[in-house]
Amino acid sequence: MKPSHIEHIGIAVRNLDSAIELYEKLLGLKCYKTEEVADQKVRTAFFLAGQTKIELLESTDPDGPIGKFVEKKGEGLHHIAFAVDNIEEKLAKAERAGIALIDQKHRKGADGLNIAFIHPKSAAGVLVEVCAKQDNTCEI
Amino acid sequence: MKPSHIEHIGIAVRNLDSAIELYEKLLGLKCYKTEEVADQKVRTAFFLAGQTKIELLESTDPDGPIGKFVEKKGEGLHHIAFAVDNIEEKLAKAERAGIALIDQKHRKGADGLNIAFIHPKSAAGVLVEVCAKQDNTCEI
Repeated sequence: MKPSHIEHIGIAVRNLDSAIELYEKLLGLKCYKTEEVADQKVRTAFFLAGQTKIELLESTDPDGPIGKFVEKKGEGLHHIAFAVDNIEEKLAKAERAGIALIDQKHRKGADGLNIAFIHPKSAAGVLVEVCAKQDNTCEI
Repeated sequence: MKPSHIEHIGIAVRNLDSAIELYEKLLGLKCYKTEEVADQKVRTAFFLAGQTKIELLESTDPDGPIGKFVEKKGEGLHHIAFAVDNIEEKLAKAERAGIALIDQKHRKGADGLNIAFIHPKSAAGVLVEVCAKQDNTCEI
């Protein structure tokens, strides 16, 4: 993949407003945006620490991926997203190398990014996302 | 805390050598260092993606914190570490603000850093580490 940096860390929370308050207090940083991503059944809130966003995720539906995660495992770290360029080429190359992809093709994610998920079995139990800007670069 | 960036992401793994191989293949990056941290009962391996290290952690003792985590939850994301300056001052300020600290004072961590942990109850279920270089800066 040769990521340029970690684009964001996804954290599953039960209540977005409480979690925003907690993270503003903890980090001394302001949440700079909230966004609903209907496709993922989440409301999200963003903080920026250096190159990397902290993305808090509250499920809008108990049957969504974050709803199921929180029900099973509780709140906490959910996924890590690496910024790449040429996302389709990187996904095809990963598949040829035997890496298990959840998404063979990219789809639209939060914050105007093209995203795809890698299966945790190819990353020692970690749900990995790769993402690229819609112009296919990984600049920040 | 006003972190300058995310210093590292800690990932608990069952077998360090297998996980290094997996991450080298997935990320297309080379592990640049391994280190044993006796105090934490772990062997660690490091990758660098932009400003942030990926720190793979294998327990050297089933009763160590990573051993217990893997036994209970399986492999996966374990903690997130923010780079700060003036770590003692930041810890004291956090405690005054009602943030639950695991470590009131910093201790020595991997990679020559002074580290301290924040309790997950103050971070929506996430184990948060803060760390500073031994000269008390957060430069990278």
